[in-house]
Amino acid sequence: MPLTMYKLSVPAFIRGFSALGGLLDKAEAFASEKGMPLAELFEARLAPDMLPLAGQIQRASDTSKNAIGRLTTIETPRFPDEERSFAELRERIAKTVAFLETIRPGDLEGSENREVTLNFTKLKVTFTGEDYLLQFVLPNFYFHITTAYDILRHKGVPIGKADYIGGLG
Amino acid sequence: MPLTMYKLSVPAFIRGFSALGGLLDKAEAFASEKGMPLAELFEARLAPDMLPLAGQIQRASDTSKNAIGRLTTIETPRFPDEERSFAELRERIAKTVAFLETIRPGDLEGSENREVTLNFTKLKVTFTGEDYLLQFVLPNFYFHITTAYDILRHKGVPIGKADYIGGLG
Repeated sequence: MPLTMYKLSVPAFIRGFSALGGLLDKAEAFASEKGMPLAELFEARLAPDMLPLAGQIQRASDTSKNAIGRLTTIETPRFPDEERSFAELRERIAKTVAFLETIRPGDLEGSENREVTLNFTKLKVTFTGEDYLLQFVLPNFYFHITTAYDILRHKGVPIGKADYIGGLG
Repeated sequence: MPLTMYKLSVPAFIRGFSALGGLLDKAEAFASEKGMPLAELFEARLAPDMLPLAGQIQRASDTSKNAIGRLTTIETPRFPDEERSFAELRERIAKTVAFLETIRPGDLEGSENREVTLNFTKLKVTFTGEDYLLQFVLPNFYFHITTAYDILRHKGVPIGKADYIGGLG
């Protein structure tokens, strides 16, 4: 079976969200055991001007669904970043995964050659679909899953590498 | 041009190390400006039982070169984790990149079907080369680059997402 744009994206995203779900489970158990308000983990961040846990999950969601939107002509759902609780973060993850599960391998056929343009504040970057996925989407997606992990680890939640890679593997 | 195991690995690793090099530059400039001993950044970590900055770089190095070793019959260099300074971390990065630059696309031809077995303390996992790269190597590689970034960001080094993704892009 050849490598495909589908294999590199949708299953990887779904595995990432499965890992995230497991991290949230352990975070909730930890907070409950320590009598720590869940809001303390929800809003935890590694630097004052970095996104908190909730933001990392929202960006992982957007990175994955927007990648599909840019690599295909499929309309992607909009999620307005209004989550206020762990339950709502889980709902955001579930809605993202539900969308990803509608994607079929054929939907991404030929997307390696599709032109993708990103408009940043200061510059505009045009990629082939393949470069966009390999050089932008995957590094960004894993950035947000890892940073969610790092935030929880920094707050003392007893998680280990297997909770990150196990969910991904 | 079809997607290949080479495209998914070697160039992504080299971009990651280029991003890491840029992060070290900014970390050194920050330490010098603040009169902070470089050792404070070298040994910084996000949790007492997590690897420090140096360890994240050593693991990124091993993840990339060992992936090539497991996906081919090429002998990989051994680097004994003896780095004690920023200069030595840069040397570790340079040696890793020098090895990666010797790899040709043809070296990884057919590696998607190669059987790769990993022996962990508690279990043994066998992957196809493709699953090993997509489900283990890439998530792990980006984990260590991101955590190096997160450690420096947590210590106050003025870096931003572009320093991560820019080096990768």
